[in-house]
Amino acid sequence: MRQPQQERSRTTRRRLVDAAVECLAERGWNGTTVAVIAERAGVSRGAAQHHFPTREDLVAAAVEYLGEEQISELRARAAALPDGPSRAEPVAEMLLDLYTGPMFRAALHLWVAASTDENLRAVLVPLEARVGREAHRVAVELLGADEARPGVRETVQATLDLARGLGLANLLTDDTRRRRQITRQWARILEPAVATRTVRESA
Amino acid sequence: MRQPQQERSRTTRRRLVDAAVECLAERGWNGTTVAVIAERAGVSRGAAQHHFPTREDLVAAAVEYLGEEQISELRARAAALPDGPSRAEPVAEMLLDLYTGPMFRAALHLWVAASTDENLRAVLVPLEARVGREAHRVAVELLGADEARPGVRETVQATLDLARGLGLANLLTDDTRRRRQITRQWARILEPAVATRTVRESA
Repeated sequence: MRQPQQERSRTTRRRLVDAAVECLAERGWNGTTVAVIAERAGVSRGAAQHHFPTREDLVAAAVEYLGEEQISELRARAAALPDGPSRAEPVAEMLLDLYTGPMFRAALHLWVAASTDENLRAVLVPLEARVGREAHRVAVELLGADEARPGVRETVQATLDLARGLGLANLLTDDTRRRRQITRQWARILEPAVATRTVRESA
Repeated sequence: MRQPQQERSRTTRRRLVDAAVECLAERGWNGTTVAVIAERAGVSRGAAQHHFPTREDLVAAAVEYLGEEQISELRARAAALPDGPSRAEPVAEMLLDLYTGPMFRAALHLWVAASTDENLRAVLVPLEARVGREAHRVAVELLGADEARPGVRETVQATLDLARGLGLANLLTDDTRRRRQITRQWARILEPAVATRTVRESA
């Protein structure tokens, strides 16, 4: 009996987390309550509160869980790419598209709400640091970047900060065309700065 | 009599605009009403509505007006810098610090609110385009960038998108130390990409 119950519990959590992200992206932090999320997830409010005592817990879990999932997906897609410098452009595209979907939209609502809400800020600051470190790690992996070389660590950081800025530029209008042009130029900038490890391997 | 009245009118508008930015940065869009802004500015609600019929008009004027002011200030500071490649680092610092103050915080509240509010979106989208173009123009000027060279336009755009991403990273915690390291690396990346015009002049 233990396994099926764990299974059910996982399904419930997953449904709540998906509903929380949808709800945040569509209605913002003020429109996102445990009751609204539970209803959207088809879960009773009591069950929702059993898993996540407060809405802060629930939305933080949502951002973290889906952030991890997004990163796993990125790793899987990147594994299919060839090694060497030809890798720079598709990897730049993957990274610079990272924050253009509903996940970022949801997280942005939270960040902005947290800037005027102490409770939410206390939950989000450590989460932001953890998710940020994980995104950095996967960017280093994907680019084949050698962080022992001076400046490479900062170039990888700049790539992710640029990606967040591009996410912001995509919030109110579809910025895809402009982003594609920036991505091509970014790949050229990244090539000498970070691709040495894969270049060396393929030489 | 005409001049003093225009003068008073300008003062009133300016007070409302300053109050709107403070109010947005501290309380977000939901806490920012014409009544709250008027009270903070020491202006009657009627007078506030005479200048700005809706809160959308008022906050849009605020973001636009202060955005322009920030850009004028940037131009003045940049005029004091030496020409040539030594210009890259101080200019990179000015540009990458551009979105770390209360102005960006206020604008961010608006952007995020506009993503779930059609009326606000209709006001902000053209404003965002105008302010964005102006920021691009001043960045080109400050960097001495020659946009006729391939890739330069996109590098300047990336600089401003990176600056917005860094603004986001500075929202919940003080990110100055990390931003300084990224800025130094960014100046190195910018140097060959854009500083040719000033390099040529100083050669």
